[in-house]
Amino acid sequence: MNFPSKLIEDAVNEMAKLPGIGKKTALRLVLFLLKSDESLTEGLTEALTNMREGVSYCRKCFNIADKELCMICESNMREKQIICVVESTADVLAIENTGQYTGLYHVLGGVISPIEGIGPSDIRIDALLERIRDDSEISEIILALNATMEADTTAFYITKKLRPMGVKVSSIARGVPVGGELEYTDEITLGRSIVSRVSYE
Amino acid sequence: MNFPSKLIEDAVNEMAKLPGIGKKTALRLVLFLLKSDESLTEGLTEALTNMREGVSYCRKCFNIADKELCMICESNMREKQIICVVESTADVLAIENTGQYTGLYHVLGGVISPIEGIGPSDIRIDALLERIRDDSEISEIILALNATMEADTTAFYITKKLRPMGVKVSSIARGVPVGGELEYTDEITLGRSIVSRVSYE
Repeated sequence: MNFPSKLIEDAVNEMAKLPGIGKKTALRLVLFLLKSDESLTEGLTEALTNMREGVSYCRKCFNIADKELCMICESNMREKQIICVVESTADVLAIENTGQYTGLYHVLGGVISPIEGIGPSDIRIDALLERIRDDSEISEIILALNATMEADTTAFYITKKLRPMGVKVSSIARGVPVGGELEYTDEITLGRSIVSRVSYE
Repeated sequence: MNFPSKLIEDAVNEMAKLPGIGKKTALRLVLFLLKSDESLTEGLTEALTNMREGVSYCRKCFNIADKELCMICESNMREKQIICVVESTADVLAIENTGQYTGLYHVLGGVISPIEGIGPSDIRIDALLERIRDDSEISEIILALNATMEADTTAFYITKKLRPMGVKVSSIARGVPVGGELEYTDEITLGRSIVSRVSYE
């Protein structure tokens, strides 16, 4: 693609580094900013800079926080005895949006991945074990990791470490999505949904 | 959507003002920036700020330019007697990418739209007429406007103004897109493609 200006080219190249944004979309966004009032570009760049520089992480669960503790750890409305272990802060947001969970979280910040050179000490497993050791109130750990090989390895590792600590460990259910059709569900998911069938009480 | 931090919320809201970017995509982009190295956010915000503050417009054709004249107006390789009239700088880029046009451009910066209160004097029609008046070399004007009611009105207005000036005026062809199937082409386009049929020579 030929650009009429070096400045436009730079802006497009930077914008295209974002996930899911190709050169064409980046150009469309850049030309939109160019056409719009200057305050829009200012607002965007300021908000991004403030966000990147200002956001800190909860010292307890490593979720995004404005203060030392995140809103969830600080709240009096949450069940303090359950911890849901997730990979990233995006997962916390996704679970929070369901409105079905009232416990606390622990953000690992990744999963064990030998290929990428990420070992158990590179993610926040030790901090999780310490949290459980220090707080006798904690009685249940829910593993809410993605359905990947690496996440399964991580879940296996954490489960092994947690067994001697006397807390109940569970994983979120895998199965046919609500609204999904059996015919179009992959075999592994469908297989798992049969193995982990739920009996009517 | 609940956000764990005011800073994240602000960044998402600003990002979601871009066209085609909803709250969910904005959140994904913001969390990506948060997870990535700080230099990525810095690079992006700097490039956008420099672009918005630094880009100027060609004083002749109003295309984006780094200097007083744009690269196209300045070039010695272009045919100086043809001007292609377009609505926006994005259209210039689109036509340049075809590699089929070697003349000059004139960017109107919009089209006549009574509903939005945009009259002939709000877009750069006078500048176009002046350009033709001042430069006797110019012999042909190609109208490359979008296929909307407003663009048709604008084309009609420009054509009327150009008639006494003795330049040849044409419009880009409307018809069935290359690779398109007749069966799925809308009636108006198909109708126009029959009316403007091209005879084999």
